[in-house]
Amino acid sequence: MLEPPLFAVPAVERGLTEQLHRKIDHKTKPLGALGQLERLALHIGLVQNTLSPALRCPHLLVFAGDHGITAEGVSAYPQDVTWQMVLNFLNGGAAINVFAQQHAIRLRVIDAGVNHDLPAHPKLIQAKIASGTKNFLTQAAMTQDECYRGLQLGAAHIDRLRTGGCNIVGFGEMGIGNTSAAAAIMSRVCGLPLEVCVGRGAGLGDSQLRHKIEVLRRALRHHAVRQPLEVLRTFGGFEMVQMCGAMLHAAHHRLLILVDGFIATAAFLIAAQLHPAMHDYAIFCHVSDEHGHRRLLKHMGATPLLDLGLRLGEGTGCALAYPLIDASVRFLNDMASFEQAGVAGKKDAV
Amino acid sequence: MLEPPLFAVPAVERGLTEQLHRKIDHKTKPLGALGQLERLALHIGLVQNTLSPALRCPHLLVFAGDHGITAEGVSAYPQDVTWQMVLNFLNGGAAINVFAQQHAIRLRVIDAGVNHDLPAHPKLIQAKIASGTKNFLTQAAMTQDECYRGLQLGAAHIDRLRTGGCNIVGFGEMGIGNTSAAAAIMSRVCGLPLEVCVGRGAGLGDSQLRHKIEVLRRALRHHAVRQPLEVLRTFGGFEMVQMCGAMLHAAHHRLLILVDGFIATAAFLIAAQLHPAMHDYAIFCHVSDEHGHRRLLKHMGATPLLDLGLRLGEGTGCALAYPLIDASVRFLNDMASFEQAGVAGKKDAV
Repeated sequence: MLEPPLFAVPAVERGLTEQLHRKIDHKTKPLGALGQLERLALHIGLVQNTLSPALRCPHLLVFAGDHGITAEGVSAYPQDVTWQMVLNFLNGGAAINVFAQQHAIRLRVIDAGVNHDLPAHPKLIQAKIASGTKNFLTQAAMTQDECYRGLQLGAAHIDRLRTGGCNIVGFGEMGIGNTSAAAAIMSRVCGLPLEVCVGRGAGLGDSQLRHKIEVLRRALRHHAVRQPLEVLRTFGGFEMVQMCGAMLHAAHHRLLILVDGFIATAAFLIAAQLHPAMHDYAIFCHVSDEHGHRRLLKHMGATPLLDLGLRLGEGTGCALAYPLIDASVRFLNDMASFEQAGVAGKKDAV
Repeated sequence: MLEPPLFAVPAVERGLTEQLHRKIDHKTKPLGALGQLERLALHIGLVQNTLSPALRCPHLLVFAGDHGITAEGVSAYPQDVTWQMVLNFLNGGAAINVFAQQHAIRLRVIDAGVNHDLPAHPKLIQAKIASGTKNFLTQAAMTQDECYRGLQLGAAHIDRLRTGGCNIVGFGEMGIGNTSAAAAIMSRVCGLPLEVCVGRGAGLGDSQLRHKIEVLRRALRHHAVRQPLEVLRTFGGFEMVQMCGAMLHAAHHRLLILVDGFIATAAFLIAAQLHPAMHDYAIFCHVSDEHGHRRLLKHMGATPLLDLGLRLGEGTGCALAYPLIDASVRFLNDMASFEQAGVAGKKDAV
């Protein structure tokens, strides 16, 4: 029997707060005129504990896994789409390939528990725990051992990136049925009714959405779990567990964590329940169109960068938000100050 | 006496609408899952009248001009900041330099009417109409000749870009006092009370904001103008007039027009009053934190790409939104279709 992996997540040092504020405020622009980018620059400076932060070797990890709950007809697409989309990622044909390439973000796909034998590929990391989770309608999605192993595997993915010098990592996923898992986790952890947590996923109609809510209602009634890791292992997917372990380990090593959409945010929710300091490291890249996501972000007090009606997953929100994150670091490093540029400051208020 | 320049702005061809929809819908993603990027891909395909659009040689034009109305104490910064910031643009130290360079957007700064002799510089286009506008509290900001000349000069800037193959151009500005000009134009054209149009600009306090509103109230009472070009010449700046002419000429030649913040949107408002088909070519890059901008966009039915609390101008919103526009073109061109990738489609609805 495995022990639960223990992750130490230290709160971020705040010693440079005032100096960072001063550096930002002396740039040639009205005070606060770069809005959210200024908060982002401060945030990144604090995480890296420097006045001159740098984004090094950005990676995007796409975790894939299958879900037993799909047997209940909760998804608009067949389960085979999970492995077919993994092949699409490997062949470079998916949205995340296009956007990651656009911004020179390195993409790695992780088989965390896909119900299919996938071929070896330089972009693919084999970390399959099992060929999909159990149907959580009447049993836990995974055993405790599987859950702990998933967390450890997640951490190992981060160690591999760190060796290459990476200090910023985005988290995306693929898994038919995983909006059901995320909605169940959100409802239980946040104490919110299913109606505000459950959405149409990849495209359910009205009656299918009602059915999905009903299935999840029965599942939640069946499982009394409350402790965060127990909630994760009961309703979560292997991709979510590995994501959670990877996020925790990334924060332990002070990497910047880019959170994508609804499923990545649900995995982050569990990580933040275990270690509230997780919030110090997270950048919420977008609010998705999946019904529960806006509310989940609100519940955590998170302000997303983009609001484009995306609902694709794969880490697409991370890749699309990346240039904004990069921009915040660049203005902090490269813009001239009023003094350097010889620009007059604000007039004294009358 | 100059004749008013006539710009012909044809409505965009819509013959490819259905084929573009089909191409977008067959990409390996749930229907509509790329949200606003899908609408953008359709939009750009229609403007370029092709299923495989391309963004060529993107430019950002920053129009600079001074405003006589600053004599009334409506701005938090002294007028000299206009020319000092122009030098900052030329020396590469401003926010727009950083963001334009990040995305390989070529930057050109236009002296449309700065109250200072600026040195020759490869990035600077000399197109000064006069050393700042007149104080519009009691007289029109410019003469009819100056207004028409500004429109023609604006058009000439676009011809220069077209020679280099450019098909997408962003519009930014610099001009101490120009939120006053934009607010007056917005109030008169949209028929909205000054209180919803006037904001703090670069950083007015409460009493200064009340003063700004009072000054603009007197100016609007003094000038009964209603016709769009008359409103522009009465309250506008030389940077706004040249921007308006450039936007009209850009649309005439079917370039994509990237609209930045409050002042650029006010210039676009006049252009769209003259030619409603202008909307076919415009991409609204962001909604700024300057008070009137959100309402102005709403008035025009425009959906901005970013909402980051920016209020800097300079075209910074255009540069920051550019990668999203690029992403929409890339997914349309480079993503695999369900057929190409061998991915199963949606299940039949029950």
